[in-house]
Amino acid sequence: MPDAPHVVIIGAGFGGLYAARSLAKKRVRITIIDRKNHHVFQPLLYQVATAKLSPADIASPIRSVFGRYKNVQVILDEASRFDLANKKVVLKTGEDLSYDYLIVATGATHAYFGHEEWAGLAPGLKSLEDAVEIRRRVLLAFETAEREALIDGKRSMLNFIIVGGGPTGVELAGSIAEIAQKVMAKDFRGIDPTRARVVLLEAGQRILPAYPEDLSRSAERQLRNLGVDVLVGRAVTGLQPGKVLVGEEVMASNVTLWAAGVKASALGNILGAPTDRAGRVKVAQDLSLPDHPEVLVIGDLADIKDQAGKPVPGVAPAAIQQGKAAARNVWRSIQGKPREDFYYLDKGNLATIGRAAGIAEFGRLHLSGVIAWIFWLTVHIFFLIGFRNRVLVFIQWAWAYFTFESGARLITGRTDLPEAGK
Amino acid sequence: MPDAPHVVIIGAGFGGLYAARSLAKKRVRITIIDRKNHHVFQPLLYQVATAKLSPADIASPIRSVFGRYKNVQVILDEASRFDLANKKVVLKTGEDLSYDYLIVATGATHAYFGHEEWAGLAPGLKSLEDAVEIRRRVLLAFETAEREALIDGKRSMLNFIIVGGGPTGVELAGSIAEIAQKVMAKDFRGIDPTRARVVLLEAGQRILPAYPEDLSRSAERQLRNLGVDVLVGRAVTGLQPGKVLVGEEVMASNVTLWAAGVKASALGNILGAPTDRAGRVKVAQDLSLPDHPEVLVIGDLADIKDQAGKPVPGVAPAAIQQGKAAARNVWRSIQGKPREDFYYLDKGNLATIGRAAGIAEFGRLHLSGVIAWIFWLTVHIFFLIGFRNRVLVFIQWAWAYFTFESGARLITGRTDLPEAGK
Repeated sequence: MPDAPHVVIIGAGFGGLYAARSLAKKRVRITIIDRKNHHVFQPLLYQVATAKLSPADIASPIRSVFGRYKNVQVILDEASRFDLANKKVVLKTGEDLSYDYLIVATGATHAYFGHEEWAGLAPGLKSLEDAVEIRRRVLLAFETAEREALIDGKRSMLNFIIVGGGPTGVELAGSIAEIAQKVMAKDFRGIDPTRARVVLLEAGQRILPAYPEDLSRSAERQLRNLGVDVLVGRAVTGLQPGKVLVGEEVMASNVTLWAAGVKASALGNILGAPTDRAGRVKVAQDLSLPDHPEVLVIGDLADIKDQAGKPVPGVAPAAIQQGKAAARNVWRSIQGKPREDFYYLDKGNLATIGRAAGIAEFGRLHLSGVIAWIFWLTVHIFFLIGFRNRVLVFIQWAWAYFTFESGARLITGRTDLPEAGK
Repeated sequence: MPDAPHVVIIGAGFGGLYAARSLAKKRVRITIIDRKNHHVFQPLLYQVATAKLSPADIASPIRSVFGRYKNVQVILDEASRFDLANKKVVLKTGEDLSYDYLIVATGATHAYFGHEEWAGLAPGLKSLEDAVEIRRRVLLAFETAEREALIDGKRSMLNFIIVGGGPTGVELAGSIAEIAQKVMAKDFRGIDPTRARVVLLEAGQRILPAYPEDLSRSAERQLRNLGVDVLVGRAVTGLQPGKVLVGEEVMASNVTLWAAGVKASALGNILGAPTDRAGRVKVAQDLSLPDHPEVLVIGDLADIKDQAGKPVPGVAPAAIQQGKAAARNVWRSIQGKPREDFYYLDKGNLATIGRAAGIAEFGRLHLSGVIAWIFWLTVHIFFLIGFRNRVLVFIQWAWAYFTFESGARLITGRTDLPEAGK
């Protein structure tokens, strides 16, 4: 179809992937640009970070997702500039790519509130590389404490501090507490992993502020049952190697993780359109840029309100809905039809808190504990991309549930052995 | 058992792992030192390097293998020096560890025949980190060629050159040819992955020189059927970025992999005992160091002959047999019994050459093709450490066999995008 309209999609997260899927069966040419070769199922990233799943279990090569659609091509590259007047994307490798329609879906990244130097001290969790790095730090902390206990007879503390009480922070804290309590317990001789301290720091007055208050309280209770110290009203004022500063208080920390904030991908700024404080691009209700109906911005990069006037949250279902809506609006324009406004439909929210625990909100129906957890399992297996991934994840979850083992306890990369005399 | 003899084992490859397993049920205290937290099932490393399995599928945390043996402790560290006179190992972190018996099993690493600067140009395959790096380079080569074809209209060559025709070289070449031919074919638009050229360079007169000649020929035929160019009698004389030099000939190469030689771990030299050309420690027939019966050296680090006077090969079964024999001899010494000589029992050799192809040698029984491949599958599933790993590997093999898909096609780490103007 050399004369079919050319739709360029930047980013193959949930938004870009579902936009491409919706358009792939239409008479259009699609080019997907991503700087990675894989789509990541982000809601399960924390399970890679906590050694429950392998990176490949939650990732799919983008080009294999679209293998059978001959009108879809995938290019490993990045957008470095936009020439909206001439409808061109300039790629990092220097070439131009012309489009008829452009969908920008490059998502969000960690925000350290102006302290970008904290990134090395407290990694956030957005990519598979982040997840493997967090896994390395968490497992290495146990190994280091064991070595010191066995060789020097030292009783070191083992503190994990997670900054930020949103869903990612809650899931990381619950999952780390769980492996310390259940998985690691029988494998160490010098230390008692069950005495590791997991702290969840939240600046606001309650964790999971986007959830109704009763579910916040329930999540906090479930975390405490796992041994997590939930500290609210504590804003981090500084990070140093091995330390977290909260006002006057200095907390010793072996591993600090950052789940406190996100900002939109830097690509938003170079689109030349107005952005909000978090760098998100203000879009019209049809998801398009002002004055550029052929450019649509979706997912975590878009600043858009729902029907009640509330900002659409940065969650996977919202990105998926926007991806589908953007594809529909592009196709309507191609057919010469008027576009439709996009309104986010909140179908509910789910979070897990370790084994057989979690919370779920479906409108006025609020669930906690095992039932929420079963909902969570079912939904996440169902939405995983690729049948193979579903089978592998299901088997590993079942295995972990019945054996209290955790499959991917690998330290790869540097082991940071302190050399004698250094 | 604080008064039980203390056995220190350095290295948890096949030799060290099986030595520890054999001793774990005896009345001894065991300390395993390894610089990684995991044992790797090395015979399947090439499947991680070629995107068929995930790292965690072929690795087991060392301490979880010994979780139920309370007399076994595991320390993440390295040996940096030996004080044989005082029976002490000095660890990299600076502390001493006293032993009654010491088993050194630190294996082998790549040898570039004095050209260590080649390591960056042609990675070898010994660790999970190596495997992920090779996977990154192989997959990235396809992505780069696709980008150049789609954007610049360039028809780049896609050459993979594997140096060394031993089992690792053969398995890598077969496996890369297979993913190019079967897995990648339908997912690219600008390039035709089936036209990628896979070259196996062997300096000697035939590949797999350790195998009988008829099986060498059969392996060569099976590789050619997969489209691999097998070039024998070609010694590599130089490596440059993007180039392999063979005498006067310059071969363009997108990805060069090194499977041409190994040398023993550097630890052999600091034991103070005589070593052979490859750095292997000459041991007595009971696997002990001369003058130090309490120190045993096993696996790829040991220079020992079999009953026919031939050197014991550097393969997993030999290391396993030596690990068990070392454990038996240590236990016999503890009981005041005389030691037994170790003689390698060659139970046969197997190699795969892609899908439903392979060779097998069991004494005078030589097998080729599907039957050898089925033998290989069965043996490797059986010997994998951990039931969980067996289930996951089996499922992924079955999946790949029936769907021609390959599960772990992940590029993680750097994507090396050439920036405009650079």
